[in-house]
Amino acid sequence: MRLALIGFGNVGRAFARLIDQQRPNYLFRIVAIHTARQGTAYDPAGLPVQPPFGPAAANIEEFLDRAECDAVVEITTLNPETGEPALSHIRAAFARGRHVVTANKGPVAHAYSDLASEARKKRLQFRFESTVMDGAPVFNLVRKTLPAAKVQGFTGVLNSTSKIVIAAMREGKTRQEGIGIAFRLGITEADPSYDLDGWDSAAKTAALANVLLDARTTPQQVEREGISGFTEDDVRELAASGKTVCLVSRGETTGAGIRLSVRPEILDDTDLLASVHGTSNLLLLHTDLMGTVGTVSIAPGVEQTAYGLFSDLVDILETIS
Amino acid sequence: MRLALIGFGNVGRAFARLIDQQRPNYLFRIVAIHTARQGTAYDPAGLPVQPPFGPAAANIEEFLDRAECDAVVEITTLNPETGEPALSHIRAAFARGRHVVTANKGPVAHAYSDLASEARKKRLQFRFESTVMDGAPVFNLVRKTLPAAKVQGFTGVLNSTSKIVIAAMREGKTRQEGIGIAFRLGITEADPSYDLDGWDSAAKTAALANVLLDARTTPQQVEREGISGFTEDDVRELAASGKTVCLVSRGETTGAGIRLSVRPEILDDTDLLASVHGTSNLLLLHTDLMGTVGTVSIAPGVEQTAYGLFSDLVDILETIS
Repeated sequence: MRLALIGFGNVGRAFARLIDQQRPNYLFRIVAIHTARQGTAYDPAGLPVQPPFGPAAANIEEFLDRAECDAVVEITTLNPETGEPALSHIRAAFARGRHVVTANKGPVAHAYSDLASEARKKRLQFRFESTVMDGAPVFNLVRKTLPAAKVQGFTGVLNSTSKIVIAAMREGKTRQEGIGIAFRLGITEADPSYDLDGWDSAAKTAALANVLLDARTTPQQVEREGISGFTEDDVRELAASGKTVCLVSRGETTGAGIRLSVRPEILDDTDLLASVHGTSNLLLLHTDLMGTVGTVSIAPGVEQTAYGLFSDLVDILETIS
Repeated sequence: MRLALIGFGNVGRAFARLIDQQRPNYLFRIVAIHTARQGTAYDPAGLPVQPPFGPAAANIEEFLDRAECDAVVEITTLNPETGEPALSHIRAAFARGRHVVTANKGPVAHAYSDLASEARKKRLQFRFESTVMDGAPVFNLVRKTLPAAKVQGFTGVLNSTSKIVIAAMREGKTRQEGIGIAFRLGITEADPSYDLDGWDSAAKTAALANVLLDARTTPQQVEREGISGFTEDDVRELAASGKTVCLVSRGETTGAGIRLSVRPEILDDTDLLASVHGTSNLLLLHTDLMGTVGTVSIAPGVEQTAYGLFSDLVDILETIS
């Protein structure tokens, strides 16, 4: 299977290494890579792990027209408010008859239903395991191991920056020092408000709801409250009484529709949701037949995000063959 | 697919209800049920949820010879020391060309490699999702959602009775009162030593190791220490310092072979392993490509064990068709 990558940052480089390492067993070949900054690289025989970039293609359409590939791997940087430019990249790939895997939660959070429908019409596959929980089985868990079970809701602690900032404040550091720790770990942006105001969690909540609850929603429609209302003193007072605050994503199917929220919740220190620290994360799925079952991922990094893309491609191979 | 059940206790009855409920979508039909106490029932057209039992077949061979089925569902009560009688039942089913699903951890803990090999030779399927974590995806998770990844070890808190007894002791109750609570919840036997001495965990550890680490081991070969060394005072002293004791199952692939253990570990109250309470359980898989990823199951019951059997049957259907 010939792959074209859009984007080649940390995840892209980890993905190229993984594909190279798995070559004895899986016939994936990266034949084209497009980046806005580094340029564009093509080689129908397969690009090396550190590809030689030439001039950048004028636009994605030109890149995809020239790249002779079977599947597109979309791993650009996200504009979280709209899902762009990843959304347009995916549509351009579908328009050219290419399967798509992405680690970008924006398109799934903003337009899953449309994208799934476009893919279906063209008999193409669309996979996105790495969009929530960095490659740990979530969507594939439901699709492949929970037959006939209906997901009725979910509860997750999915944002690393908020966990790290709260943990720092519990230890006597300031909020700003906590943000500094998260920034140095490479898990938050220069502007941490995307994480701390709950937008990252809202995007993941919308993505989960769109796929698992057929919600047809967007991050903007998720009830959202960040953790900025909690001062250092608040957090330390909670800690003194054996409690903590967590930014919790919830989705629930009710008689009146689907209710989605991201909110700080005050929990006992011993609560399962409070026991997932640092960059680890946890998602519980509330189902009709299998009760509440969940996935936990301990301190995932870019290698795991890359693995999620790889597992999606293997799944596409098995589906189409 | 025509099913024959060996055993018809709480899990069997929940399974019969589930099969009945899923009939519109899944063509499973229970055509025979054998129990030692209630007798044996046959109906090629499909038995009702509450079957009319006739005289018991003289033995499993007679039962299986008469029951015209495609798959056998083994759900008898376990003799944990040997894996019998379930092990013989499964062999008798394979000998007659029937696929097997079981919720009985004994056969997988004692003889997985042989059973898998017998099944392979006869081109039959063998599934056992409900043997560890009551139906939550563990074995199917690895097989179906973690392509190319190698499980190198695992860490789990898999025994409910020990959790409930420790929790009771933390609250000021005696060990015996804790055992009473577990007994009334229906999760431990009249003799709780199987749970408290770590045999239940050792059987699950051996099952996991046999399947995921290719260990060819038995529960007797797992390094095993139960929680009976911890008195009420010990547990309360730990609690006062924010700590607790958990019965932890560990498997590890080392240069010198596979190391398996079940031991009480003293953990912070806020440790993820300590945050799984009551009948809930958690298993972390340590992999090469996907880092550490796990499954958590919240308060599963017989319905979830029944669902695990059902999910195995669906998987067999998909595999053979």
